[in-house]
Formats: sequence, C-alpha cells, structure tokens
Amino acid sequence: PKRYSITLLPGDGIGPEVISVAKNVLKLAGSLEGIEFSFQEMPMGGAAFDLTGSPLPEETLLAAQKADAVLLGAIGGYKWDKNEKHLKPETGLLQLREGLKVFANLRPATVLPQLVDSSTLKKDVAEGVDLMVVRELTGGIYFGKPRGFGTNEKGDEMGFNTEVYATYEIDRIARVAFEIARKRRGQLCSVDKANVLEASMLWRKRVTAVAADYPDVELSHMYVDNAAMQLVRYPKQFDTIVTNNIFGDILSDEASMITGSIGMLPSASLGESGPGLFEPIHGSAPDIAGQDKANPLATILSAAMLLKYGLGEANAAQRIENAVLDTLNKGFRTGDIYSAGNKLVGCKEMGEEVLKSV
Amino acid sequence: PKRYSITLLPGDGIGPEVISVAKNVLKLAGSLEGIEFSFQEMPMGGAAFDLTGSPLPEETLLAAQKADAVLLGAIGGYKWDKNEKHLKPETGLLQLREGLKVFANLRPATVLPQLVDSSTLKKDVAEGVDLMVVRELTGGIYFGKPRGFGTNEKGDEMGFNTEVYATYEIDRIARVAFEIARKRRGQLCSVDKANVLEASMLWRKRVTAVAADYPDVELSHMYVDNAAMQLVRYPKQFDTIVTNNIFGDILSDEASMITGSIGMLPSASLGESGPGLFEPIHGSAPDIAGQDKANPLATILSAAMLLKYGLGEANAAQRIENAVLDTLNKGFRTGDIYSAGNKLVGCKEMGEEVLKSV
Ligand SMILES: CC(C)[C@H](C(=O)O)[C@@H](O)C(=O)O
Ligand SMILES: CC(C)[C@H](C(=O)O)[C@@H](O)C(=O)O
Repeated sequence: PKRYSITLLPGDGIGPEVISVAKNVLKLAGSLEGIEFSFQEMPMGGAAFDLTGSPLPEETLLAAQKADAVLLGAIGGYKWDKNEKHLKPETGLLQLREGLKVFANLRPATVLPQLVDSSTLKKDVAEGVDLMVVRELTGGIYFGKPRGFGTNEKGDEMGFNTEVYATYEIDRIARVAFEIARKRRGQLCSVDKANVLEASMLWRKRVTAVAADYPDVELSHMYVDNAAMQLVRYPKQFDTIVTNNIFGDILSDEASMITGSIGMLPSASLGESGPGLFEPIHGSAPDIAGQDKANPLATILSAAMLLKYGLGEANAAQRIENAVLDTLNKGFRTGDIYSAGNKLVGCKEMGEEVLKSV
Repeated sequence: PKRYSITLLPGDGIGPEVISVAKNVLKLAGSLEGIEFSFQEMPMGGAAFDLTGSPLPEETLLAAQKADAVLLGAIGGYKWDKNEKHLKPETGLLQLREGLKVFANLRPATVLPQLVDSSTLKKDVAEGVDLMVVRELTGGIYFGKPRGFGTNEKGDEMGFNTEVYATYEIDRIARVAFEIARKRRGQLCSVDKANVLEASMLWRKRVTAVAADYPDVELSHMYVDNAAMQLVRYPKQFDTIVTNNIFGDILSDEASMITGSIGMLPSASLGESGPGLFEPIHGSAPDIAGQDKANPLATILSAAMLLKYGLGEANAAQRIENAVLDTLNKGFRTGDIYSAGNKLVGCKEMGEEVLKSV
C-alpha cells in the first residue's frame, strides 16, 4: 500500500472533536484505495500555549514540516484573547503558514442544493453558487516590513504596517489561480485596488502578464470594493477569484457566509513543494466545544482536499465528497444546518453516517 | 434670509443629470425654510480633465474650499481609465478629499420598507436594516508614505504602500462616530484587524480610550473578516460602524449592496471645520448617461445630508427626506428600483415628483 504521514493539529474548542471524526473518515477512504496513513497528533494554538507556553511549539512545526500533509482543527478562544501578541493562538497559525511556506490558500464557497435554504440570500441568488477564492497567504500586509509603533513629528503615537508584493510572489499565486480556473469553468477574476494602491498596480500588471501563458482562461479585474458588492448582488458571476492576503481574508469570509453554511466549508493552503495545510474555515466555537454539537463536515471535506490537492489521491477524495453528499441526501444534519424534516445529529453520529457511505 | 454658497461638481456620466435635479430640490427646500443658496458649478473628474488637463483643477478646489458645502455628482468612466494615475478622475476625488480635509465619511445603508424587495437578501434579513458606516477618509493606506515601486534584494520589482494611523487621526474619527451613535441607537462597532496589524492595535486602543467620554454608547469590536460575514448573516445587528479607510471602502460598499438599492444611498464627508463634501455613493454609470434614466434620489438625499450635517439645517433636511418617502409611497420608481405595480419614471420626472412633496 501507499503510505503517507499526516500531522494532526486538533487545536482548540471544537477542534479535537472534528479532527477525531475526520481522521476516521480519512483512514477509511484511504484504506479502500490502498492507502495507509500514519497519524501524529501535535499541540497547536491555545492548547499548545497552555501545555508549552508557545502557540506553535518547535516540535509541532518540525513535525508538520516533515509530514506529507497537515490537518488542522481550529484555534483560538476567549481564554487566550488577552495573551500578548506573540503568544496568541492566531500568531501560532500565522507562524505555521510561514513555516510551511504555504502561499496559496484555496477557499471554495459552494451552495449545495440540499442546503440552499441556509443562505440569507434569496434562493434564486444563492442556488448554484460555486466559486473558489485563491488567497495569497504568506505576503502582503500580514508579513510586510517595516511594521510596528512609532512617534510622528508632532510626538503623536503611530501604528504602521506595510502592504508589499514582489513580482515573484504575485506570479506564483497567479499561476496557482490560473491552473485552478483552468480545471474549473475557465474564468479568473483578479481583485485589487489598483486605482489607489501601488502594490495593487504591480499585482494587476503581473497577473495580466502571467495570463499570456493561459490563453484558455478568461481573465477579468475587479476593485475590491466592487467585489464585496458583487458577491452580494450576483455571486454566480464568479468562478475563480485571486487576490492578496488581506482582501482574500475579507472576501473569502464574505463568500463563505453567502453559502449560509460555513460549517460545511473546507480550505487548503499549498506551497511550492512540501506539505499542505488543510483546515475547516470555521473557528473554534468555544461556546459549543465538548458538547458533541459541532459540524464535522467542513473538516471531513478538508480531508478530501488534503487527498486531492495535498497527495494527488483524487479517487479517495471523491469517495469522501460523495459520502458527504449521500449523508446530506439521507437527511442527516447537525444543528447549524438543521431545517425541519431532517434528522438532527451530533458531531460523532454525523461522522458515523459519513463512514457508512465512504 | 440665511445665505449659503454651494459648490456643485456635476462630474461625469450621470453626474450632471442628478446634480441638476438635486439642485432644484435643495433650492425649494431651502426657500421654504427661509434659506437662500448661491450655486457655483465647477468642473471635476474626467470632464475637468477634458477641459483643463487636470481631474481637479486648482480653481475647482479653491471654489470648494471657500463654499459652505460641496455637492458632487459622480466621477469616472471608461474614457479616462487609461489615464496616467495622477490624471485619473479617481485621483481628483482623492485630492478633493485631502484638500477639503474631510476625514469622516458617513455612509448610511437603510432598507426602506418600500424597497425591501430590491435586496438580494431574504425579506426577514433585509427588512429594518438601518446602519451607518463611519469611514476614516484621509488617512491609512490611501495616503500613507512611503509608497511606490522598488526592487528587493533579489532584484525583483516590488510595489508597496503604508497603512499608518496616528493617535490624533483615530481619536477624531472615533469622536465623530461616538457622536453619531449617540444620536442613533447608541451602539458603536469598531472594525479592525487587531489580531494581525499594529495599525489596528493602536486603532482599537484609542477607540477604547475615547469611549470613556461616551458612557451612554455601547462599544464593541469586530475583526474585518467577521464584519464582512456578519453583514451578510444578520445586518440588523449593526447600528453604527467605525473603521479605517480601506476597510470602510469595502464594508460600506458591501453594506450598501445589502440594501439592494444603491441608487438611493447618499454620503457625507466632513472635516473638523470648513465645507463638507456630499455625494451619492453610486458611480457615474456611463452606460446610461444622458438618457434620463438615472435615479436622482441618492443625490437628493445627499442634499438632505448637506443641509443636516453640513449646514445644521435639520428642518430643510427633513423636508427633503419626507418628500422622497412620499414620492416612493406614491409609487414612482426609476428603472433601478422598479417593481411591478409601480410607475416607471425618468430622472427628471422623479425630480419633479419630489419637488411636489417638498
Ligand atoms: C486568525 C486570523 C489570523 C486568520 C487570518 O486573518 O488569516 C483567519 O481570519 C483566517 O482567515 O484564517
Ligand atoms: C474611486 C475610489 C478612489 C473611491 C475610494 O476608494 O475611496 C471610491 O471607491 C469610494 O468609495 O468613494
């Protein structure tokens, strides 16, 4: 059998619950396709801070770097909100992204016919939405230097950050996005603020240059404020969106809420080589942690992305995706996606139902 | 009678049409309250570029600075999209904001009962939405230095901008926002990315400090990605939002699209003293320019904001707001807000109907 090593980072809140369920699904889907996994669980986020004093212990980063892929649950919680910045769970996550050099964050937002009513958008606007946000993840204002605090000429305190992109950073994320658009409906919309920002002007110039290698993909450009509007007005116009780190943070969250079911949405973060990082887009939901109420489907679908994008195991990935659809078709729903006439289940039972269909 | 001088900047596309209608409404509402206006029309945007070679001629800025208030139509169009950056209509607008020192941009997003069906959101989600975005307008990444292009150590081209806020800039916009929240429902949500950006950490610290002077206003904080989600999930949770220039650009456009009727939405940009700048939030819509199809109500409501926030003439402002509601109640609709059973009218006729009710 083929063997892969997976680092599991359960993290905080509902993280451990959804990871434990997704692990079983991954195992079964793999074994049915002749794949064997070895799993290594490592501390991360607030849990790691409590255990070791650091939200990303060195052993965790090393284990993740050595693995074939990394599956993360969720991080953060009220408990650590007052931590100093370098000790916050979020900082651990940013360090993990940087340490794994995963510059490309893939965030699909799909409205499943079974769940179209969960959207706050009218049915005819929401149904059929199937878009992918490709967000640059290791550059821009998140990591740009100089950053910090200072004093201006008038003796006033200032806080500052640098939005900066270099050609190579734009080119590589553009290539990832064009490749993805090519495998989807062939339309790529690059989002920037090139009417104001120099960093965006270079972004637009380079994305346009890279487009020459992808004549089969239709490229368009949109300002970020307009994109935020168009996602609400007519989300079906989008196939693949590519954008910088901060705009991607905002727009991918907006897009995911448009589906109405963020408990369903996975994500993948990929580098040039080395292990990818896969995680649900929802947070750690501390208020329902430990109550077997969490929706594990986003993490299960993240495991599918792990197979497809991380390991190139498309068949095993397809098994998981089909199993999730089957389970929804049978009417199983966790609380966040429940509607009358369906069967309300907890996190574990949902996992068991998916297992039956893998 | 009281006298005020108003600089009118019709600008591009549908700008001249909506300004001409709004001017008549402003005149009538004023005269009924013992107010006399002198109007001075000046070129701005693409039209000014064609005429003078500059999107904001010096005479236009000087006239605006000397006026009691400035009413702008819209700027921009395909024709000038390829202009060099410093010659773009948008650059003229940024220079006008800077030149008038209007650091506080007020953008209400209100769903009128008459137009709730225009929203792409479900009726129960959209109805009753009534929020105000207070956007910082003359600082942050829009104006921060250093900015430009350069080369990194590897010889790679880079584009960069600086997101920077000083204490005094945050304090003054926070005060404007608290004052507005106090006159509304007493809730202020400050939006930032303080889990990542130093500029946002200072933002949060200062907004929290200023809150001490407004014990009657309930202050909350939200990350910008979450705010983009919450606007889609449950927009009614928001009363007043205060945020930086770029986040405000994105979120106010998203919020306005949630109402479904951006042809209805006005805006005000205010400074410490000196004339305010009032404009509809919609663009110049070059595709329908000159066809008498534009919705003049956003500009008419901007004239109401001019009276209320710019001149302190609340009664005259109320006349205009009531007249707009009356006209909608009578069933008059321009194409962008038309629905079956109503009377389709053009820009001019809509203006005449509003005049009847002022
Ligand atoms: C937790 C935070 C630092 C993170 C980000 O801003 O990237 C999160 O919002 C995300 O989108 O994964
Ligand atoms: C035209 C552009 C420069 C402007 C901005 O980004 O501020 C516009 O989007 C706005 O919101 O008024």
